[in-house]
Amino acid sequence: MINSYQDTIVAPATTPGTGAISIIRISGPETFQIADAVVKLKSGTISEAEAYTIHFGEVYTVKSSETPPVIPSEVEGSLLDEVLVSVFRAPHSYTGEDSAEISTHASAYIVNEVIGLLLKAGARFAEPGEFTRRAFLNGKMDLAQAEAVADVIASSTAASHRVAMNQLKGGFSAQLASLRSQLLEMASLLELELDFGEEDVEFADRKQLLALLEETQKHVDELAASFHQGNMIKNGVPVAIVGPANAGKSTLLNALIGEERAIVTDIPGTTRDTIEETMNLGGILFRFIDTAGIRESSDTVEKMGIDRTFRKISEAEIVLCMLDAQSKENDLLNNLQVLFQHVNSNCQKVFILLNKVDQIASEGINKNVSAINKFVSSSDYKAKLITLSAKEGKGLPELKDALYQEEKGLISNDDSTFVTNVRHFEALQNASSALSDCRTSLSRGIPSDLVAEDLRRALSAINAILGTDLLDPETILHNIFSKHCIGK
Amino acid sequence: MINSYQDTIVAPATTPGTGAISIIRISGPETFQIADAVVKLKSGTISEAEAYTIHFGEVYTVKSSETPPVIPSEVEGSLLDEVLVSVFRAPHSYTGEDSAEISTHASAYIVNEVIGLLLKAGARFAEPGEFTRRAFLNGKMDLAQAEAVADVIASSTAASHRVAMNQLKGGFSAQLASLRSQLLEMASLLELELDFGEEDVEFADRKQLLALLEETQKHVDELAASFHQGNMIKNGVPVAIVGPANAGKSTLLNALIGEERAIVTDIPGTTRDTIEETMNLGGILFRFIDTAGIRESSDTVEKMGIDRTFRKISEAEIVLCMLDAQSKENDLLNNLQVLFQHVNSNCQKVFILLNKVDQIASEGINKNVSAINKFVSSSDYKAKLITLSAKEGKGLPELKDALYQEEKGLISNDDSTFVTNVRHFEALQNASSALSDCRTSLSRGIPSDLVAEDLRRALSAINAILGTDLLDPETILHNIFSKHCIGK
Repeated sequence: MINSYQDTIVAPATTPGTGAISIIRISGPETFQIADAVVKLKSGTISEAEAYTIHFGEVYTVKSSETPPVIPSEVEGSLLDEVLVSVFRAPHSYTGEDSAEISTHASAYIVNEVIGLLLKAGARFAEPGEFTRRAFLNGKMDLAQAEAVADVIASSTAASHRVAMNQLKGGFSAQLASLRSQLLEMASLLELELDFGEEDVEFADRKQLLALLEETQKHVDELAASFHQGNMIKNGVPVAIVGPANAGKSTLLNALIGEERAIVTDIPGTTRDTIEETMNLGGILFRFIDTAGIRESSDTVEKMGIDRTFRKISEAEIVLCMLDAQSKENDLLNNLQVLFQHVNSNCQKVFILLNKVDQIASEGINKNVSAINKFVSSSDYKAKLITLSAKEGKGLPELKDALYQEEKGLISNDDSTFVTNVRHFEALQNASSALSDCRTSLSRGIPSDLVAEDLRRALSAINAILGTDLLDPETILHNIFSKHCIGK
Repeated sequence: MINSYQDTIVAPATTPGTGAISIIRISGPETFQIADAVVKLKSGTISEAEAYTIHFGEVYTVKSSETPPVIPSEVEGSLLDEVLVSVFRAPHSYTGEDSAEISTHASAYIVNEVIGLLLKAGARFAEPGEFTRRAFLNGKMDLAQAEAVADVIASSTAASHRVAMNQLKGGFSAQLASLRSQLLEMASLLELELDFGEEDVEFADRKQLLALLEETQKHVDELAASFHQGNMIKNGVPVAIVGPANAGKSTLLNALIGEERAIVTDIPGTTRDTIEETMNLGGILFRFIDTAGIRESSDTVEKMGIDRTFRKISEAEIVLCMLDAQSKENDLLNNLQVLFQHVNSNCQKVFILLNKVDQIASEGINKNVSAINKFVSSSDYKAKLITLSAKEGKGLPELKDALYQEEKGLISNDDSTFVTNVRHFEALQNASSALSDCRTSLSRGIPSDLVAEDLRRALSAINAILGTDLLDPETILHNIFSKHCIGK
């Protein structure tokens, strides 16, 4: 294939740090010779060792030939470390090649020295993701599975982990394979016609073919549509916190996050003017977006901030409309009306949070609650009302539970496939558009060869996801695997 | 012994991060049952597996019984990860117990979940250093070796690594063992006399005994004395950079460190008023200490700073006296005189650095050089003169090489033992003082039973290093192993 892989690669497979053990990974045809040159076993050699066995050995320093000008070299022949070597033999290894893992004490010094010795013995330092790239090129996994390896490592919630693991285990690939065989079947029928082109035969029943195309496209579209959810699973469900200034939006964000500080991560690239924080609720990642307060304003700069808030509302999956329970009924409803104008009742979920209930008597709360409920029932919205005190933490468990209930479909028990990768999403869109063209051509009686070309376009889009038909393989593989980490 | 170790412990052995692989370590009598409860092998069980073999298996989620109030539990029965399990059987394992290593994808989520399952299956989360503590208590290594494990992991230079590895491999322990057998022999001779106490026999030839005692104490003192070097190997050779204000001391520190930024670490606990930076030169760690400039001053606060500089001089192994090549001859020699007053010519090494040679003509440099040389040769000091320009990096390679040459004994090729641990140093001092008492008593003709008690004190100090005779074992072991990391 693209690379003959005559060389043997090495890299640390664990993060250098303060752990107890470090693992150095070697893969390639000369794995065992190179390991034997560096690790002395108590008896026998690594080359003779059986697959799936572990061997105790010692690594000794050698004198460096590349002595820097003033600083003398390493002392020769002193014990560098006692190690364990795990032996894997082709094709029954991660990469499909002969490979070994050397387990050392978790010292950055030792790991660097041992890797230096392995390089000196003929190994090459691996590029990022090169072990997985080799696994792909050696047919151990398809490209969609190889891409899932990085997602499995990066996933931080039950939901994102499940989706990545399903993709790694080939759940997504199996669906693509079934699409592929449908497309291939249709294509072969059409190509048969082409062979008999002169005779103007129609082997394929056009009506049946159209029905099959429609069904296939529906499947493709369903997968593409799952990207909406898949993206939320991977990057978090966007929840916009909106409302008038001083309703307590930032207090709510801090209260939500503060309680779960340990599992909060900052989203890189967060813009300076909106604050985003993520939080794991019952295995689902939620991404909370704090926004500028909304109010009537003639100030140009403030108007821009408010426009941004409206944009954030439109991008959110869930909108939390935050109101101050101390406001007058009229103000509350006016605020709600402004907010609702920017919410799409068809695809967005709305919660109305009546905040600061610790500040007023229950009579006042009840009055406002019924006014809001009345307003909501007269609107198109199914907004759930939650009373809370962000400051005192009252109502937060109810809010969290409500959010979880709203999105628990993302972590459902069946092994649904979700597309989480933009590359896959775009390929599916290409496939769908090719299938649309195909259907149009067919129903218009366009000649089979042109129809077949559309089909091939759809097929090639699906193949690109699996990695079997890449237009510019070197670039695509580089883009994919360079995002992996060293040692994977 | 102290603990019967009926329980089985688990901990991550690698740092959670962005690597490719994470290792989870299990040790204890129920290792295999617990691993089998969590990992499903393709065929057979871990309990049946042979030692030193690797097995592919799968880990599935289970429904959590401890459902938090609002957030529902993990989905049951979905694939958490594909893992490799390495099997070690007692006593041929690190801890001496049955143990296993589970290799997972390097995701913090997966590692947490798998450890959660192992805990649920009956394992206990290990305390820091508990694997090594078990190795010690199961007789796999003595206490000095167990303490070396943390040093091996922490060592960042060839010299510190060699010393730690020598200690881990029992080089230090072997010397202690020989001391111990000498002491035991003398003790048994004396005790024999006690048995015949009534008869007033002297089995032990007093003269021979005294000679033996002297020899043993000499050996103990040599080991204790090696702590000076051992401490430098472990924590860096202290190098004070001193001189008048504006001689370019900080520029030199930055120039030295700037070139080697990657291997620089900050010393924790560095006081605000002196700046310390470490640097690896040819495998030896040097700790550079920048100090306040020295000049005549009547200002109280400034005087305090200057006093501190003099203290730093007295604590340094090497003193770099920095002078400005542009100064008048008289000023240069005055500065040198003040600095030399604070240097101990017997045990401290001095370099005179004539800085800013880029600023004046070579004639001026030569004149100053001969004046300094004349001054030095008329003094008690063997100070080497190096001309340099810290700003332009001139003379830095010569300085580094000179520092390395001065201390290369720390990384000598023979397997010399260096004491690097304060606990060991203090124990050796105790042993030496007990042996002194012993010699005094003997030469004064004090009764054998009192002499024997002194000998036992020396013996017990040596035993404490090896961990065979700990006065308050629980406290001492806790102090030692709680400094280790989790998973070790």
